[in-house]
This record gives sequence, structure tokens and C-alpha cells, in this order.
Amino acid sequence: MSLKLTILGCHSATPRINAHPTSQFLEIKNHHFLIDCGEGTQVQLRKFGVKFSKIKHIFISHLHGDHFFGLVGLISTFRLLNRETELHVYGPKGIKEAITLQLKLSNSWTQYPLLFHELTSFDSELIFEDKSVEVHTIPLKHRVYTNGFLFKEKEGERKLNMNAILNYDEIEVCDYQNLKNGRDFTLKNGTVLKNKILTLNPSLPKSYAFCSDTAYFPEIIPIIKNVNCLYHESTFLKDKENLALKTLHSTSEQAANIAKQANVQQLILGHYSGRYKNIEDFKTEAQEIFKNSVLAETGKVFEIN
Amino acid sequence: MSLKLTILGCHSATPRINAHPTSQFLEIKNHHFLIDCGEGTQVQLRKFGVKFSKIKHIFISHLHGDHFFGLVGLISTFRLLNRETELHVYGPKGIKEAITLQLKLSNSWTQYPLLFHELTSFDSELIFEDKSVEVHTIPLKHRVYTNGFLFKEKEGERKLNMNAILNYDEIEVCDYQNLKNGRDFTLKNGTVLKNKILTLNPSLPKSYAFCSDTAYFPEIIPIIKNVNCLYHESTFLKDKENLALKTLHSTSEQAANIAKQANVQQLILGHYSGRYKNIEDFKTEAQEIFKNSVLAETGKVFEIN
Repeated sequence: MSLKLTILGCHSATPRINAHPTSQFLEIKNHHFLIDCGEGTQVQLRKFGVKFSKIKHIFISHLHGDHFFGLVGLISTFRLLNRETELHVYGPKGIKEAITLQLKLSNSWTQYPLLFHELTSFDSELIFEDKSVEVHTIPLKHRVYTNGFLFKEKEGERKLNMNAILNYDEIEVCDYQNLKNGRDFTLKNGTVLKNKILTLNPSLPKSYAFCSDTAYFPEIIPIIKNVNCLYHESTFLKDKENLALKTLHSTSEQAANIAKQANVQQLILGHYSGRYKNIEDFKTEAQEIFKNSVLAETGKVFEIN
Repeated sequence: MSLKLTILGCHSATPRINAHPTSQFLEIKNHHFLIDCGEGTQVQLRKFGVKFSKIKHIFISHLHGDHFFGLVGLISTFRLLNRETELHVYGPKGIKEAITLQLKLSNSWTQYPLLFHELTSFDSELIFEDKSVEVHTIPLKHRVYTNGFLFKEKEGERKLNMNAILNYDEIEVCDYQNLKNGRDFTLKNGTVLKNKILTLNPSLPKSYAFCSDTAYFPEIIPIIKNVNCLYHESTFLKDKENLALKTLHSTSEQAANIAKQANVQQLILGHYSGRYKNIEDFKTEAQEIFKNSVLAETGKVFEIN
């Protein structure tokens, strides 16, 4: 199964008609992760048919409004929908206070467990892990404390090589899980069949890195090296490199340079400044450096293989 | 000039596609007031062509999300648009802490003066006044501390009766303001012309009362008596009167009963629960009690004469 990324919003600063602030919905190995939550994200989720109850983990990069102001409303809506499942929120220190103050003032405590994981480290950390997926922070360089997030599949089980297995009547269905786990099989006559003749290599684990907002910051390259897909903000074109420097954002060219140096397979651009009327220019600029550059657009779905 | 009310959103609870939470834009004697500010209000303002810089006063009824979660985003957008004009925010105690905490966490203090007027009284108060307009609170009955707002024009100047004035050569243009202010005019021969023969009564001052959210609460009737227009929430139809009682909301019938007892000219219904598919039923139910009942709808403009 591939990773599936739905862009709920990919514009910067203020929400405008048909220009929604940052939010993404990532499906990876039966996990459903929400990444950032600008104002209006809950309506975008409805628009693109995401079932609210599937979301159990929300990752917030930083506390600027265009990445965060939709969170309290989403949390409140979960309450109104009688959610019972626990919700985990990962974000900068302060996020818990901001949300809980508003829930207190509206006398609207959630009836479901709401668990905050506040981030403070400037080193990459493992913040979520289970048997199939890992999530690591990617410390970024912005005007406030900011992390990107690296989502990595773990290597899966070995695949059964049925052509080989069916040659041996002694191997029964109840043995399959041991084979998937990499164990050899011993026949009754004592012959040991090596696992590698009965199984095939697992699919290569896939990975997705989300990096927004950030200045050009090559320190992230070792963390995102060789990922299948990188989303890197490109608020400006290179004509505004000075402004990017001043506001600690990136140009499209800088995003492409990061993608190239990190040897990623695909670069998705986004977080466009409202000053640009034609977002195709972001792609054109990036492709001069890194060919497989594509544009985030609201509602666009990326299958990451 | 009439009052002009634009409905930016009139649905309750969670924002949904084409169901925006409460917000209204009121134009009264060259004032531009925003009333409540649910999530997404800033995009609604753009959609209906409201110039952001005109808004100098925002009135927040209570701190439930569907009336309040859009405020911090709007305040931030004003900052990004380089606003310089001061902004006054009127709302329940706690509103300042909720907004300023979020501005602090995002390191985004406004460069324009942001002035909070926190409300705590359970009696009606005069909270804004200038030469042409008054705004009073209307204490309501809800699950958290809530005020409606009464917007009243002040009586204007007397109108010049030009047919009468032109009979007297001695009355010059520079005397007109005195006449408008109600003063008599003394001719050179000592004859006193009474003001009332030279002027006409001013237009009757107009008034608008916003009451949301609230249970059926007849205590508001003396405050809203004889207003030109009353917006009264009607979250439910009378089939759910028990639910209205439990959640401290009103039915359409109850809203109509308030309108009738207060002898208002027009009732606008709104804050519809998402459970009802046909909002026409709210009007039908109200009109059985109070004939001039109309429905709030997103984007609808009411001229209040």
C-alpha cells in the first residue's frame, strides 16, 4: 500500500476565498495523521470526505495562526460529535495552555481523552512509534519554535513466495507467520529450508517529510535524506529572496536545493505567498534545480510509492 | 439612512460546508460593527466585500467556539494587513487572556492598538456611545456568561423646513445649524419665530437587538421593547423544546413569543441546529405567533427602516 497525502490547504498567512492555510491529511499503514490545522481545516476535512473519527494524532509544526488557529475548533467539534477515542496532539510548548484555556472559557471540556505532547527540543526526536510507523521531528529555522515531521514506515514482514512454498506439502498455513517473520523451516527428514528460498523481500519502507515553515536550512538534510517525498515550503520566488531571509521563509529555488542535496524522490512545493497570482512559477523555478518538483494544490491527492 | 445588517453566518455548533457559524456585520450611522466571530468569519467578510479597515468595534456575545473562534484569526489578519487604526473588542471576561495568549505564543503582537472591554455585569450596561449611536448589553441566559447587544441610533437633528424658512430673507445659511439644534429665530423687528415653525421632527431613531445564545428569557423584554428589528436565536423547533430547555437555547416559537411581547417590528430567526434540513419550518412556526418573522440566511442583507 502506498502513502496517501491529501492537501487540505497550502497557502500562507491569512485565509482567503479559495486560499486555505496549511493542513494536510496523511494516510500511512492504516494511520490517519493530520498535519497542521489552519483556520477552516475542519470544513476542508468535510469537503474532502475525511471521517473525523479516524484522526487520532495531530502534528502541529508551530503556533503561527495559519498552521494552528483551526485546532481548537476541530477539538470542539470532536466533542460535539460525541467522540470517545483519545486524541494525541503534538506541538510546541504552549499549545496545551492555549487550547485548554479556550476550552475552560467556553466550559466545553472534552469527554474524550485529549493528550498533549509538547515539544521543546532542538534536536530531532522520535515522537511516535508503533509496529508499523515512526514519526520524528525535523527542527526547522523560523521566527518561532518550529518542527517539521518525518513519517517513516518500518520495514514490513517478508512476503510469502507461494511458488516455492507449494513445492512442500509439509508447510501448512499455520507456518506462514513464522516464515513472514524470517524463520527457516525444518522438514521432517531434518532438511533445513532457508527462509530466503521460501520468502521474498518486503516492500521498501516509504517515507514522507513535511517541512514548513522554515528558512533555507541545510541542517535538515541528514534527517530527510532519501525520503520518497518531501513537502518543503516555498513562500516566495527567488525575486524575493531578501524577504525570505528576513521573514525566515524559503524561496522555491531554495526548496529545490534542499530536495536535490537530500536526494529525495519528489518535492512538493507549497505555502505560497498571496502576492503571486500564478503559482506555476514556483514549479518552473524549482524544476531548474530539481526536476521532480510538483505543486501542492488544495484538494490534490499524492500517492507516494 | 437605514440600518444595514449583513448575515455572515447563522448556523449553530460546528462550521460545515455552507453552514457558517454566527457572525453579523451591522452598518449604523457610519459605524461598522462586527457582531460575533465564529471560525471562518474573515473569509465570509471577504466574500461579502466588507472592507476590513472599516471595522473598529467587535462585539462578542459569549466564548463558545461558534461565536468566538474566528476572532484571533481576524485580529492576526488585521496585523498582517498593516492596520494602524485601533480596534475595540467587547466580550466576556477572559476574552483578553485567550487572545493575548495566542498572540504571545505566535510572537505576533499587533502593531495597532487592540483594546479589550471585558464584560461581567448581569445588568444591562451602556458599553459604547458617541454623538449618533449607543450600544447596550442585553444580559442573556445561557450555559456560559452571555450578552446580547442593543444598537440604538440617537435622535438626530431637527430637519430644516425650507418652505417656511424661505419666507424670511433674514434667515441665512449660517443660521441653519442653530435651527437644526432646536433654537428659535428672532427677527430684527423683535418677533420671535418658534423653532417648530421653521423645522420638522427628525427621523425616528432606529434600533437593532441581537440576542444569541439564550434560553427563553422574558427578562430581556424591557430592554428590547419596540426595537425595529430583533435577531433572536431559534436553535430548535418546538418539537425539541425539552432539548432547548436543557441546553439553554430557544425554540422558534419562543423567539416569536419574545418578539410579540416586546412589540418589535421585525423578528429575524437564526442559529439553526444542524439536525433540521428545512429551515423554512422555523419561519412557519414563528409566524403562527408573530407574523413579521423572517429567516437569517448566509449573505442575506436586511435594511432596517
